Amino acid sequence: MFETAELGRKVSRKVYKQRLTPLREMLLTTQNALRSARFPVVVLFAGVDGAGKGETVNLLNSWMDPRWMQTRAYLDPSDEEQERPEYWRFWRDLPPRGQICLMLSAWYSRPLLGRVYGGEPSHFEDAINEILAFEETLVDDGVLILKFWMHLGREAQKRRLQSLEQDPLQSWRVTERDWRHWRMYDGFVSAAERLVIRTSTGSAPWHIIEGEDAHYRSLAVGERLLAAMQRHLRAEAKEEALRTVSVPEDDGAAPAWDVSALDRLALADGQSEGESSDDVRKEHPLTVLSSLDMSKRLEKADYKEQLAHYQGKLNLLQRQAHAQKLSTIIVFEGADAAGKGGAIRRIAGALDARHVSIIPIAAPTDEERAHHYLWRFWRHLPRGGRITIFDRSWYGRVLVERVEGFAREDEWRRSYAEINQFEHQLVAHGTVLLKFWIHITQDEQLERFKEREKTTFKRWKLTDEDWRNREKWGQYRLAVHDMVERTSTSEVPWILVEGNDKSYARIKVIRSVCERLEAALG
Amino acid sequence: MFETAELGRKVSRKVYKQRLTPLREMLLTTQNALRSARFPVVVLFAGVDGAGKGETVNLLNSWMDPRWMQTRAYLDPSDEEQERPEYWRFWRDLPPRGQICLMLSAWYSRPLLGRVYGGEPSHFEDAINEILAFEETLVDDGVLILKFWMHLGREAQKRRLQSLEQDPLQSWRVTERDWRHWRMYDGFVSAAERLVIRTSTGSAPWHIIEGEDAHYRSLAVGERLLAAMQRHLRAEAKEEALRTVSVPEDDGAAPAWDVSALDRLALADGQSEGESSDDVRKEHPLTVLSSLDMSKRLEKADYKEQLAHYQGKLNLLQRQAHAQKLSTIIVFEGADAAGKGGAIRRIAGALDARHVSIIPIAAPTDEERAHHYLWRFWRHLPRGGRITIFDRSWYGRVLVERVEGFAREDEWRRSYAEINQFEHQLVAHGTVLLKFWIHITQDEQLERFKEREKTTFKRWKLTDEDWRNREKWGQYRLAVHDMVERTSTSEVPWILVEGNDKSYARIKVIRSVCERLEAALG
Repeated sequence: MFETAELGRKVSRKVYKQRLTPLREMLLTTQNALRSARFPVVVLFAGVDGAGKGETVNLLNSWMDPRWMQTRAYLDPSDEEQERPEYWRFWRDLPPRGQICLMLSAWYSRPLLGRVYGGEPSHFEDAINEILAFEETLVDDGVLILKFWMHLGREAQKRRLQSLEQDPLQSWRVTERDWRHWRMYDGFVSAAERLVIRTSTGSAPWHIIEGEDAHYRSLAVGERLLAAMQRHLRAEAKEEALRTVSVPEDDGAAPAWDVSALDRLALADGQSEGESSDDVRKEHPLTVLSSLDMSKRLEKADYKEQLAHYQGKLNLLQRQAHAQKLSTIIVFEGADAAGKGGAIRRIAGALDARHVSIIPIAAPTDEERAHHYLWRFWRHLPRGGRITIFDRSWYGRVLVERVEGFAREDEWRRSYAEINQFEHQLVAHGTVLLKFWIHITQDEQLERFKEREKTTFKRWKLTDEDWRNREKWGQYRLAVHDMVERTSTSEVPWILVEGNDKSYARIKVIRSVCERLEAALG
Repeated sequence: MFETAELGRKVSRKVYKQRLTPLREMLLTTQNALRSARFPVVVLFAGVDGAGKGETVNLLNSWMDPRWMQTRAYLDPSDEEQERPEYWRFWRDLPPRGQICLMLSAWYSRPLLGRVYGGEPSHFEDAINEILAFEETLVDDGVLILKFWMHLGREAQKRRLQSLEQDPLQSWRVTERDWRHWRMYDGFVSAAERLVIRTSTGSAPWHIIEGEDAHYRSLAVGERLLAAMQRHLRAEAKEEALRTVSVPEDDGAAPAWDVSALDRLALADGQSEGESSDDVRKEHPLTVLSSLDMSKRLEKADYKEQLAHYQGKLNLLQRQAHAQKLSTIIVFEGADAAGKGGAIRRIAGALDARHVSIIPIAAPTDEERAHHYLWRFWRHLPRGGRITIFDRSWYGRVLVERVEGFAREDEWRRSYAEINQFEHQLVAHGTVLLKFWIHITQDEQLERFKEREKTTFKRWKLTDEDWRNREKWGQYRLAVHDMVERTSTSEVPWILVEGNDKSYARIKVIRSVCERLEAALG
């Protein structure tokens, strides 16, 4: 497939100069328009060594305003990077909306070299699937991804390396590694072909650029970048315009068939979970939560005994995990007053606080808002041997953001897959990941709200928003049902906790953490 | 001085329980009030091994809401930390306003151990001075710093280590290092005494806590923390109240004597810098800028030749610096349209973009606003071998923030010292640091504004704000004068660049960068 990039394309100095001036001007103007756009631009450079990746990146930096453009090259990971999943460093560097990031040796580098050096084909395919999922996640969020494959034929590469070696200003660029790779040219190109074919998607296609002539390749990259940015800006403007046009709800034709109605009817046909009032029933169709035995309790004496037992155990397990550099993430979700904070304190109380971070998730900061919604969670992933506890989490996307309409339907619907992918990366890295849904009945919540109103030092915990959320109990219930259905994987199952009795819930939580850690430590 | 902490203080279980309940309640309530305060709380724990530092930190985590409290322990620095100045990791972890950070083995640890292991007394004193400057910087910004020295007598420490060793749940805490330190007890305590004496300042005093009895030390720390937070919150409320009270400008007494008037008169007595209009003169008193020969020019041919020469040279120097892991920071300041962007592009154009970051400084993000104003610059310090270019910088504090009144007078006045201290830390770490003031005359700026209005793809560069800033030319001029006077140190002198001729300015900048790098590389 790369033969089309071995045709010997050339652009004369004259043509180059003619096209360059308007191109630079347009690039600057477009980059400036981009600054107020709602999407960032990620430009990847990969390809044959010597085909001008580094030079092109430097040129783009000189053509455009480097203040709104970052360049990142991924060499050996630092120890802070190594202790997180592979994509952590890419997430860390993703540009905020309105900015451009040029990336060299990014997520294509390791899979490709791994394959060329004899890695398993199945690992290669797994890595490609991960790339596809990652890029889809970005594209769905609006990110404009451009991928340039800079190509040289075998002989052209040889000539290029030789000529670089002879130039005293450039000879440092050529290392023994480059020549070794040149000798592996055929294997390299055949793996690359597979990679490029499989990852050329409609929304993030590869541009194969013939790299021998500097004039040609520079213009080719610059013009493609310009056109893509313009297209994306126009698409955004069009979408913006459409959003302000009101579409009539009923155009006289037959209404759209509601495929989820059957399911809703079938679920509503079940019994409620034994809550007191009768008319709650309609609002509480049968969901995965209905099967919970909400009467589960634990006597105070048993609670005290078991808590001491599991806290001691957890403390020992944490120390082992720290010694083995095993990292742990624990996620808590649940309605207001479900007892998340209490459960977290019982866990944290058993741990050495020096190795624990507790991250409460509330409204995002403006830096977080300027990125993909998962970015704010990636940035808090623990280093090796440490524990991070999330008080609410990325599941906000399919809970509060869904119910309150903060996320559009297509956004929260696709996030199930994004979340599964995210969690898979954590587990594949070796992180122990647990997620708890602490469930209480609507009546129990009311009791607890009243209790909070009475107790001085708890009163601040209760806000008007809590009362408002309560009114949407039924919608949250359905959202939880869908969430469990779609994200309870065998790798990371949801642990549903019967929360009406705080003692019972806390013990179930801490016992589960102990069991998982024990299993992971072997 | 530690004898007072070897008295054998003890609190019975009964007293402990009696005092604990109200204390925990108050700590929670106060922590909640803190969340909307304008200051963060930093709590440092240091002292004798085995005196309960770790246990106390864990207790505080269980007493208070750990979601608004972080705990940090500083062990061996990661490679990302090692490549920055020593305080980078402390800056990175400073809590945002409204939150608490408990720190173990923080900035007191290395100086103390260094001295105990036989380090030079003068190094110890230098390190203490650095601590003092750092804490003063934080305190001046409103940070509440508490420092707990957890103490044990020599025999008490021995007993403690032995009893820990016998407890199977605790024995891991005792290492050979602890016993080695115990054998060095006297040296340790005498160095610690010096450290505690010198760093017990009025605003960040040490609390010496007798550590043998767990009940006593826990209550002692908790109660001191509570009292300090309450005091600080009350002080903030009082200040807030005072701010809304209008103080009459003239109370009939003699007006305050303006000590800076003489200087202003004397400076105004000088000649202007040869600008065209006559009445500008009054607004342009004699400043350090007056001595610049603004007629300096460079012919186009010379410019091209020298630019190519220095860009080639800079490229080589960058590669050497990268190989030697030498990091570089270049700061650009100057009026609007002074040519900062153009100079930056000529520098960046010579560099390998993979190792360069360009940080444009505009309005801070909300995360940045929640920290000390220097925090946002610390977070961008380059790793080893990399270059960071700041387009505007921390000097905004004494330029735009001073002139526009965004910073109070006491804030910008003290920042000269803070900035010098910051830059000293960079230089002491081995970073090459350059700072350029690119100067243009008021007439030249007008020309450039007009030019920008005419050129389509430059028009976005010109905003209403630029015109408004222009009206404050005289005030900016004085601010620049003071800035140069107070922050041009022999370590990091300001390089004043005559900027009316862009060619001349760009060459002066790039030549200076080359010279500094050359000197640093030896």
